[in-house]
Amino acid sequence: MTDVFKHQFRFTQADVIAFARVSGDDNPLHLDADFAASTPFKRPIIHGMLGASVFTKVLGTQWPGAGSVYLKQTLEFLRPMFVDTDYEAVFKVISVNADKHIAEISTEIFDLQTNKITTKGVATALNKEKF
Amino acid sequence: MTDVFKHQFRFTQADVIAFARVSGDDNPLHLDADFAASTPFKRPIIHGMLGASVFTKVLGTQWPGAGSVYLKQTLEFLRPMFVDTDYEAVFKVISVNADKHIAEISTEIFDLQTNKITTKGVATALNKEKF
Repeated sequence: MTDVFKHQFRFTQADVIAFARVSGDDNPLHLDADFAASTPFKRPIIHGMLGASVFTKVLGTQWPGAGSVYLKQTLEFLRPMFVDTDYEAVFKVISVNADKHIAEISTEIFDLQTNKITTKGVATALNKEKF
Repeated sequence: MTDVFKHQFRFTQADVIAFARVSGDDNPLHLDADFAASTPFKRPIIHGMLGASVFTKVLGTQWPGAGSVYLKQTLEFLRPMFVDTDYEAVFKVISVNADKHIAEISTEIFDLQTNKITTKGVATALNKEKF
């Protein structure tokens, strides 16, 4: 596998509503435009953990993909994320323990319009075939 | 607010399917009983990040609740989590920076049948009224 992987994605308000339902996090900051207008964010923001779910998607299904077992993830929610906005998740291998088949991977999300980072962290995953 | 907060929860297979759809993580380990039977887990496991979504739910809506802004979360997926199983999320205040209204909170999930920890980490959140 390559040392770097990039994946573009976006979420809709329907995704945010679905995530609110399944997680139980119905904080009006994510769902209520009038409420959000009264906050420093001015408009509804995506749940940080919904944005970060792109990491489990990519690691579990694309890169390295099948067979991955998620061991750890750190997350820093640096800037708000919004619906109907193009983002890119960037993954870089930091280190691989070939004996244990475990890799540390930096995980970052960039807003493609501003090029600013919104979320960063480090994933640790096991994959017996790829690491 | 109290220094410790506990919240019991469970997920259904319908929740797992909904999370797979919204996140895009359709890893068969979470969705396909036949595939999961061929893995060390023997049966489908919940996405780690779906389990961890209880942290955003509680912090955003219950304790401390409204007004919380999620800044960081570390996650260690120590043991698999399953559907139709009772879990308890346990939150403990580690430290509070009253000037910045930011708290560090330990976040843990326990399987209520085995009393074993499945997920642990530390959340960092801002709440101007509560911290």
